Amino acid sequence: MSRSELPIFATADTYSDGAVDRRHEWASEETGCDLNALRHPGEADAYRGNIENHFGYVRLPVGVAGPVLLRGDHARGEFLVPMATTEGTLVASYSRGMKAITQSGGAVTEVYQNEIHSNATFETADPEAAAALRSWIESNQGVIAETVAEGTRHGRLLRCEYVPLGSRLIVNFVYDPADAMGINMITHVSHGICALIADQHGGLKFHFPSALQGDKKATAYNFQRGRGRSVRAQVLLRREVMNKRLRTSADLIMSYHRNNLEIGHLTGGLGFNMHIANGITALGLATGQDVAYVGESANGLTAIEPQGEDLLFTVTIPSLYVGTVGGGTRLPTHLPCLEILGCTAPGSALKLAEIFAGTCLAGEISVLAAIASDQFVRAHNRLGRNRPEPASTTD
Amino acid sequence: MSRSELPIFATADTYSDGAVDRRHEWASEETGCDLNALRHPGEADAYRGNIENHFGYVRLPVGVAGPVLLRGDHARGEFLVPMATTEGTLVASYSRGMKAITQSGGAVTEVYQNEIHSNATFETADPEAAAALRSWIESNQGVIAETVAEGTRHGRLLRCEYVPLGSRLIVNFVYDPADAMGINMITHVSHGICALIADQHGGLKFHFPSALQGDKKATAYNFQRGRGRSVRAQVLLRREVMNKRLRTSADLIMSYHRNNLEIGHLTGGLGFNMHIANGITALGLATGQDVAYVGESANGLTAIEPQGEDLLFTVTIPSLYVGTVGGGTRLPTHLPCLEILGCTAPGSALKLAEIFAGTCLAGEISVLAAIASDQFVRAHNRLGRNRPEPASTTD
Amino acid sequence: MSRSELPIFATADTYSDGAVDRRHEWASEETGCDLNALRHPGEADAYRGNIENHFGYVRLPVGVAGPVLLRGDHARGEFLVPMATTEGTLVASYSRGMKAITQSGGAVTEVYQNEIHSNATFETADPEAAAALRSWIESNQGVIAETVAEGTRHGRLLRCEYVPLGSRLIVNFVYDPADAMGINMITHVSHGICALIADQHGGLKFHFPSALQGDKKATAYNFQRGRGRSVRAQVLLRREVMNKRLRTSADLIMSYHRNNLEIGHLTGGLGFNMHIANGITALGLATGQDVAYVGESANGLTAIEPQGEDLLFTVTIPSLYVGTVGGGTRLPTHLPCLEILGCTAPGSALKLAEIFAGTCLAGEISVLAAIASDQFVRAHNRLGRNRPEPASTTD
Amino acid sequence: MSRSELPIFATADTYSDGAVDRRHEWASEETGCDLNALRHPGEADAYRGNIENHFGYVRLPVGVAGPVLLRGDHARGEFLVPMATTEGTLVASYSRGMKAITQSGGAVTEVYQNEIHSNATFETADPEAAAALRSWIESNQGVIAETVAEGTRHGRLLRCEYVPLGSRLIVNFVYDPADAMGINMITHVSHGICALIADQHGGLKFHFPSALQGDKKATAYNFQRGRGRSVRAQVLLRREVMNKRLRTSADLIMSYHRNNLEIGHLTGGLGFNMHIANGITALGLATGQDVAYVGESANGLTAIEPQGEDLLFTVTIPSLYVGTVGGGTRLPTHLPCLEILGCTAPGSALKLAEIFAGTCLAGEISVLAAIASDQFVRAHNRLGRNRPEPASTTD
Repeated sequence: MSRSELPIFATADTYSDGAVDRRHEWASEETGCDLNALRHPGEADAYRGNIENHFGYVRLPVGVAGPVLLRGDHARGEFLVPMATTEGTLVASYSRGMKAITQSGGAVTEVYQNEIHSNATFETADPEAAAALRSWIESNQGVIAETVAEGTRHGRLLRCEYVPLGSRLIVNFVYDPADAMGINMITHVSHGICALIADQHGGLKFHFPSALQGDKKATAYNFQRGRGRSVRAQVLLRREVMNKRLRTSADLIMSYHRNNLEIGHLTGGLGFNMHIANGITALGLATGQDVAYVGESANGLTAIEPQGEDLLFTVTIPSLYVGTVGGGTRLPTHLPCLEILGCTAPGSALKLAEIFAGTCLAGEISVLAAIASDQFVRAHNRLGRNRPEPASTTD
Repeated sequence: MSRSELPIFATADTYSDGAVDRRHEWASEETGCDLNALRHPGEADAYRGNIENHFGYVRLPVGVAGPVLLRGDHARGEFLVPMATTEGTLVASYSRGMKAITQSGGAVTEVYQNEIHSNATFETADPEAAAALRSWIESNQGVIAETVAEGTRHGRLLRCEYVPLGSRLIVNFVYDPADAMGINMITHVSHGICALIADQHGGLKFHFPSALQGDKKATAYNFQRGRGRSVRAQVLLRREVMNKRLRTSADLIMSYHRNNLEIGHLTGGLGFNMHIANGITALGLATGQDVAYVGESANGLTAIEPQGEDLLFTVTIPSLYVGTVGGGTRLPTHLPCLEILGCTAPGSALKLAEIFAGTCLAGEISVLAAIASDQFVRAHNRLGRNRPEPASTTD
Repeated sequence: MSRSELPIFATADTYSDGAVDRRHEWASEETGCDLNALRHPGEADAYRGNIENHFGYVRLPVGVAGPVLLRGDHARGEFLVPMATTEGTLVASYSRGMKAITQSGGAVTEVYQNEIHSNATFETADPEAAAALRSWIESNQGVIAETVAEGTRHGRLLRCEYVPLGSRLIVNFVYDPADAMGINMITHVSHGICALIADQHGGLKFHFPSALQGDKKATAYNFQRGRGRSVRAQVLLRREVMNKRLRTSADLIMSYHRNNLEIGHLTGGLGFNMHIANGITALGLATGQDVAYVGESANGLTAIEPQGEDLLFTVTIPSLYVGTVGGGTRLPTHLPCLEILGCTAPGSALKLAEIFAGTCLAGEISVLAAIASDQFVRAHNRLGRNRPEPASTTD
Repeated sequence: MSRSELPIFATADTYSDGAVDRRHEWASEETGCDLNALRHPGEADAYRGNIENHFGYVRLPVGVAGPVLLRGDHARGEFLVPMATTEGTLVASYSRGMKAITQSGGAVTEVYQNEIHSNATFETADPEAAAALRSWIESNQGVIAETVAEGTRHGRLLRCEYVPLGSRLIVNFVYDPADAMGINMITHVSHGICALIADQHGGLKFHFPSALQGDKKATAYNFQRGRGRSVRAQVLLRREVMNKRLRTSADLIMSYHRNNLEIGHLTGGLGFNMHIANGITALGLATGQDVAYVGESANGLTAIEPQGEDLLFTVTIPSLYVGTVGGGTRLPTHLPCLEILGCTAPGSALKLAEIFAGTCLAGEISVLAAIASDQFVRAHNRLGRNRPEPASTTD
């Protein structure tokens, strides 16, 4: 099997429907596959800047979960949450947890830190030069601010941090990304700063980005510092909700949780939770986020404390990456999902982050309750793929 | 804002177009949003078992990358690789790496381990009872095998492993999942085994799953043991390919890599790589995989060795989760993407896993080369969203 | 301040008292310090092979803890445990835990794995050569066994394991170290195997040891696999012992433990325990062990389960390094400490390992109980350095 | 074997020679062992507060390494370094590295952070109460400062940090420990603050310490933040020193180092180094430090950069615990070792920390050079225990 390369079409219409059609035709012929299901004419131009070699679309089904009552700093009210997934039971499970939250009086949500960093390594001549470079950067925050302002109207450089390493100086640029998730913005802007610094220092060699930023990977550095939106959600889950809606009890949940906490320490990881990766992925796919960041975001902590007959659940996620502008957020099917959540107006990013936090909290409650009561597998069997007679999925 | 709960429609047509339409209508009214873009009539039934409370679809654009020449145990030939993403430059970058692989003579790919495990905690009366339970399980592999055979025709239980912990016995069920990614299968089957064991021991209490399995999270346990498909891909990247196609050099790449390796040790993670999370996510979204597993899969190792004037690149991913049946793999738009890769026939899962490995290798090469040459950000600027006059995206 | 180098004395008496005296004199003059307290004439020759540039001795005080009743596979009976430390309250605290164990009927101890590994990286020409080398090693276990037998009469090579990495083959040599802690033996023997392999392959380049062995550092690799003696100790701590001797309760301990388990997950480590590092260090210093291994051994798990009104404590330490021959075990003051434990006869190493496990268990119990009851700091104040009127230290 | 408990002698002379003698006699009789080698009459009172149930001493041989030339902020000049160990070749190896440093012009050393923290968990009624408690603490720094001043004349509370977790508030007390290592001081003082807070809040329940402090264990939290003395040492190792003294080359070292860096990422740890645990332990044992902290300190980073024909070595240790007062620092044989280093005057702790850093740097250089040249095992064989005809140990 020898492939011809994808022909390069005229630059002018790279993102036109015509260009997509021609690629679709070429791909169908080249592979001999019927790719018609991937066609969706009429909106190719909307994907300008989001994709290359565009030849079609995959569809992911979206289910609605909730409503979930949030009483956050930014997210306030009852939210219906769109979740895109192909994993059966996921929406039902999260929805169940959301209703449990709502019936318990709602969850408090919070963005406790809002910083995203990118970093570069400058290869100076020796440690003294590294120290001098650090002084230069500290003394030239004005011109650096100008460079930032040229690169973004919304994001702000909060500070520079420094990690000296021999003759290298690692500089950590820490930003408030405003409504964008921010990685593209800070990559663009930080590189501009690096170029400025290099220019001012005789073409000083630099590596950008440096591995310190740990982008999309599980690192102790980002787990400890937080990166992106650092969020927290908590709810006092009422005894009667546990008993009636979740058909379990505080004792069963605590017994399972205690077991998990100890065994979790055998696994050697960063934090402990049941499956926040699922909620972040499904809500992220619905709202146009970059879900590859689940490699970082999956590490959070779920804590549970008995309070009388109730249980206080707290989910902490140090490194969540969401935005309401940029990325896939303005695409034809993603924008409506943000609208459902009321997250399209300027200044909505923290609200969205809190909705993610509340969603993850719901998922933790639901699956902990289900497993504690051994309902977990039975739910899978009832709703899972290719099982006969699926029951109602709304509870 | 007070929400009404989603009305429960008749069970019989939960997955019918009519049911999806009614939910769509309800959601539009309830939220006051125009959700028409999410409509795609005519195939709701195909999503039976993949989603609940289904009210529409999101579309992700798919680009084609490659071709990439693989010389694996299972994946052999030139592959065009469909990647679904909304992150600009991703497809172009991976495609560039694929062509570099192909021009260098292709990549060798391998599934070096193929095991997925699930585990349960049995709460016996005391350590002696835990030891006795272990003996019972070891002596009753026949009846356990029958339980497995009732639950799956394809997956196989390879062995049971044991971690005693006080009066608890953690039992690790290790399977070959055949063509399925496998988590649903092993969850179902393992729970059946647990129920059998509990029945045979007077209703012995158990927790299933136990936290040991580290599902969808970064854990040392799975990073060290491997879980799912453990894959490797390597290529001897030719000097002329580095110089001409990638416009960089072996020295520049090694200089950046060495810098990354050291700084990577400051971050405290599991393995080191540039961005395999991106490739796994985009190829996974195209082919119907559960991309929430990126929380585990993102931890791999990219190694580079000079060999004369060339560079030998090796990517190792211990915990990759892919299947060619189950999950979203048979859905209307995902099946064609598997067809493009020739991965629909029985026995294709390891082939698909190798294509993932080769894809990730391409991504590592491309981004290392680009950053080593400082082309990285410039490429972002050229192709990134909302930049004027994008150039050709096929190289 | 410019130093003269230490004069080189005649080789013949490097380890004689005369040589130590001359170095002592030289050091006193060179530094202008009164070093007389470090003198201990008459036994310099006993330290042959344990130290270089020997000019004196430090003294560490040894306290006796216990007795602790162990009902292990190897350690059976009541043990008085010598602990060398300069940290006030340590011996008293461990002793308190030991008595609690004894009063509860004793602890069960176990060496559940007994393997120590060392590894080398062979730099072959390409991945095919790496595979061929692996085959060669697998086919030549006979000649490798001969090399091992030449290097040690006691240790045994159990197996070779392989980690291919590009054109490199990492070979993991796994041994039973017999009564020795073993690192010197396996270093010597493994290097001999490497030299043999290199000779048989035209002077093949190798790096020995490879970083994979993670010697004396905290690594997921060794935490997950275990290295050295992998030990476990457990005791059912009786309610009356908690109430009367430890002046606390099961509820207070569990409340503190649960809190620790959750917060421990915020720290991101390997396992969770209170302070096993202290017990391993103090018992190791008394018995001539290499306490730098605490860098590895400090990572263990302390688990607690309610059983009726009692608590089942289990301590698991995957990587403990102890021996009863070699290292400092036969030195004038260390040998008597091994004699106190009945660990000088051939075949005593596993017994000693179990005593370490039981000792660590005692330390966990004591400190958990103390903190749970907030006695911790008060005990520190009463026994700590420079506090007036220290009370009896035997309880 | 049934043991009698150690008899409780009169409180008045717990730390007298007579009391030690009586315990020694009792232990000899009880165990039937000849423990005479552990006797050292005449100084028992010096160990008051350092040990309980004191019945004798172990002796560790001390070798002198160096001289090492340091050009630090605090440590300036050539130092002879006392190292206590029973591991043959250790002193010779470190000494070799020290001379290489000195011949290369000396190492620059630095304490880049000097903070030690302890933390408590307050169990408030609910998250609002946790927030209120935080406010109270922030508003009452004055009374807290008074409590600190009552508990220590030297240490200073730098700040309080807060980690809310559900209804719990974890408060992190961060100190400058002055010349003491500090754990006893901050434990004492922090507990006093906790008691004050509890008193002011109706007997509020607290757990102290909380697991967050990760004491003596490897945690991402302390590796990322640093705890104790955070130190750095670096040297430009000259080509001729590598060639002539170390009998290796920059290329050989870099080849081995690059190999280690990649393979180190397979192990999953915190930082990468060869064996800083050895240097910290041996120098710590000579100078009266608490070497159980090697469980934390062993995690550091060794970085190497080619600079022309030379190599720049940098060792970074985030969590080193040393003091020049308190602990074992004033004991009869340890004080002279501090005197050798000129570290007994007030304000010497940072100087001592820098000497530790320089020592660890020497150890890294020596062992990297030896292994790179495959001299490592040969040196072990020549100097190791029970080998005939040991050569001179001074080089």
